[in-house]
Amino acid sequence: MTGAPQACDLLIEAGWVIPVRPAGAVLENHAVAVSAGRIVAVLPVAEARARFALAETVSRPDAALLPGLVNAHCHNPMTLLRGVADDLALMPWLNEHIWPIERAVMAPDFIADGVELAVAEMLRGGTTCCNENYFFPDALARTYRRLGFRAAVSIPVIDFPSAWAASQDEYFDKGLAVHDAYRSDPLLSFSMTPHAPYTVNDAGFERIRRYAEQLDLPVHCHVHETAQEIADSMQQYGQRPLARLERLGLVNERLTAVHMTQLDPAEIALCAERGVSVVHCPQSNLKLASGFCPTGDLLAAGVNVAIGTDGCASNNDLDMFDELRTAALLAKAVSRDATVFNADQALYAATLGGARAMGLESEIGSLEVGKQADLITVELSALEALPLYDAVSQLVYAGARHWVRDVWIAGSAKLRDRRLVDIDTDRLAANARHWQQTIRQVPRA
Amino acid sequence: MTGAPQACDLLIEAGWVIPVRPAGAVLENHAVAVSAGRIVAVLPVAEARARFALAETVSRPDAALLPGLVNAHCHNPMTLLRGVADDLALMPWLNEHIWPIERAVMAPDFIADGVELAVAEMLRGGTTCCNENYFFPDALARTYRRLGFRAAVSIPVIDFPSAWAASQDEYFDKGLAVHDAYRSDPLLSFSMTPHAPYTVNDAGFERIRRYAEQLDLPVHCHVHETAQEIADSMQQYGQRPLARLERLGLVNERLTAVHMTQLDPAEIALCAERGVSVVHCPQSNLKLASGFCPTGDLLAAGVNVAIGTDGCASNNDLDMFDELRTAALLAKAVSRDATVFNADQALYAATLGGARAMGLESEIGSLEVGKQADLITVELSALEALPLYDAVSQLVYAGARHWVRDVWIAGSAKLRDRRLVDIDTDRLAANARHWQQTIRQVPRA
Repeated sequence: MTGAPQACDLLIEAGWVIPVRPAGAVLENHAVAVSAGRIVAVLPVAEARARFALAETVSRPDAALLPGLVNAHCHNPMTLLRGVADDLALMPWLNEHIWPIERAVMAPDFIADGVELAVAEMLRGGTTCCNENYFFPDALARTYRRLGFRAAVSIPVIDFPSAWAASQDEYFDKGLAVHDAYRSDPLLSFSMTPHAPYTVNDAGFERIRRYAEQLDLPVHCHVHETAQEIADSMQQYGQRPLARLERLGLVNERLTAVHMTQLDPAEIALCAERGVSVVHCPQSNLKLASGFCPTGDLLAAGVNVAIGTDGCASNNDLDMFDELRTAALLAKAVSRDATVFNADQALYAATLGGARAMGLESEIGSLEVGKQADLITVELSALEALPLYDAVSQLVYAGARHWVRDVWIAGSAKLRDRRLVDIDTDRLAANARHWQQTIRQVPRA
Repeated sequence: MTGAPQACDLLIEAGWVIPVRPAGAVLENHAVAVSAGRIVAVLPVAEARARFALAETVSRPDAALLPGLVNAHCHNPMTLLRGVADDLALMPWLNEHIWPIERAVMAPDFIADGVELAVAEMLRGGTTCCNENYFFPDALARTYRRLGFRAAVSIPVIDFPSAWAASQDEYFDKGLAVHDAYRSDPLLSFSMTPHAPYTVNDAGFERIRRYAEQLDLPVHCHVHETAQEIADSMQQYGQRPLARLERLGLVNERLTAVHMTQLDPAEIALCAERGVSVVHCPQSNLKLASGFCPTGDLLAAGVNVAIGTDGCASNNDLDMFDELRTAALLAKAVSRDATVFNADQALYAATLGGARAMGLESEIGSLEVGKQADLITVELSALEALPLYDAVSQLVYAGARHWVRDVWIAGSAKLRDRRLVDIDTDRLAANARHWQQTIRQVPRA
């Protein structure tokens, strides 16, 4: 696990280092050495102190050190809509609440302020990377860059006009221009982001396939979210949505298919064969009564499973600890087998699984020499973390976001001893309350 | 909502007072006045200050004030087994891990230390009352009394010898003696606690029915936890367990039936007609792959639904905020209807629903004049609680146990500004680590 002798500017020691790869490993009293934003060694504490005596050292003997969590599907500006409309069926929720509000407020300032609130929440909860899916990629990219947060920014495509773009052509033109402007950013990546099979026509998907290949981008899309989506597609296209995407050449290792609550065995086999990643959003699927993603069957077939919170309006938080626990618990009942989606698999899905879905597997998602130093420490000393028999089980089945103590992205401290390093929380809270007043006054249908 | 002019020794002001009854009420900038451990008024802050100027005042303008949460099913000594064996099917989990450990360690010191750890966790998470289900009721009662925690203590009955009792007769004799010794305790109540239909014979249930009537006690029992339980009962008794309990005269308003993942419409109608309470333990049911309790159908039929965490070995915490959220989310997907088990119903189930299941409805579970002052404040000022459109939705869908700031039981402060008033947390943590060493060394099957 150790690299060649090398300089190190940051050494983080922990009671338990959980590298995620190799699977199941828990290294007691180990350290991770960081140089120029990358991991240069994972080694025992004593050895690390001898070798890197001059480095800045953060010592967390009561904490676990693990890769930052990866939220593989979110609509982060919607954090400003947290709890604005709950306990509603999908269509009234969208038609009478979410869409009228979005039509009234969606603009760069809403995007920037919502993303900043989301970044603060993600960092405080141990998330260091997110797969964004929203409009105004320019405002998204600008805000994630300003805050130094790792994100894949969406190039949104939808067959409806919005404040961002008026036509399919404009969605492509404007989105691709943003991609061009930020393509060398060290923390930002992009995805082609068709909204869903039911909101993008065949011509749109064909262009998405072509650009994804040319620009080497993932295709991030809601797929098979509800049974209704399947029924509508059968009526409109005579095909299930996944079959239609297959016909259009999109079912391959670029596809990051979100939700996937409706899957037959042949579809699961197809996803496995083609290297599709499935993003499971358990709390959103439950809250909107969308259905149950068969994650146990997907894992058994070898499909890469990632975890996302979805937007804050259908969750109502960005808590990846709660989300990965829900994924692990729910899978057992759905599969009628308490051994499926075990603690190691849940942690993998929330880290390396997400990285793989975003095409970032070689850069983040595990503690391996050469990877980006996206790291979190999670205290295991609270009464609620005792006794401690297995560090991974404890994190997955009893862990909580408020146990997160420190966060680094590319070796840069973002949360230090529970304090956000470069976000003014008072201003942020005041801003959220301002939006609360504005949004409350939006007339709804 | 206000009582007659009266003395008040404690006044708690909050930004949002959520009384639970009437359903859906949220009283902004209100206060609860307490005298001699009981609620004497619920009234606007300004009025309260004028009327009760001399009372000790706790002001929480950024917090919600609500009744303490009621954990309607737990095995609290098992908090010492948190995470000792995860991701296992029920029978290997029990046979190879839980039961060998319990045989090795179950004794009054294990009970007392496990309960103390559980009480600390419950108080820090806003739970003020629990429905205990374990052996050694003498040690249970002694510990809950010492800690000033409100609990219903089990009078356990099971057709197997244990360290507590060797025969059915001895279970009854010893358990009833404990009930006699503590029957005038202000915070303790009792339940007849047959383990389950598959572990108690007909004669045992007949005695339980008789004692429950004579002593006016609830009957707290695991019922229809798994499909296997139904199949085994059909083979052994030619009846489903609930039908067998009905034959034995136990299906009535005393019955607190825990789990209930297997229910047909006639059984749901029977529960509604007879006033049975169902305790839903969603995370345990998911983790052990037991099945899905049809809570949406139960609520629609008018059945009282309460919420429990079950034991820490199958959860792995005593976090009622996480549990009530899981209940609300899961019900929607199971019912395929996003409007079922709404936020108000979830909060009701975790407070007044639990109180009703335990026969304590007239004493706790809501903020009403004359009731015990079991109260909690929950901060709504963290970034993760903003913006705030609806206080109840925020607590249910985004709330977290670490937002809990203060806790009172019968007017006595148990958690004050996040510090446990009468528990030495350092000693408790050391003790949990001691048990961790002991339990790790128990040979398993």
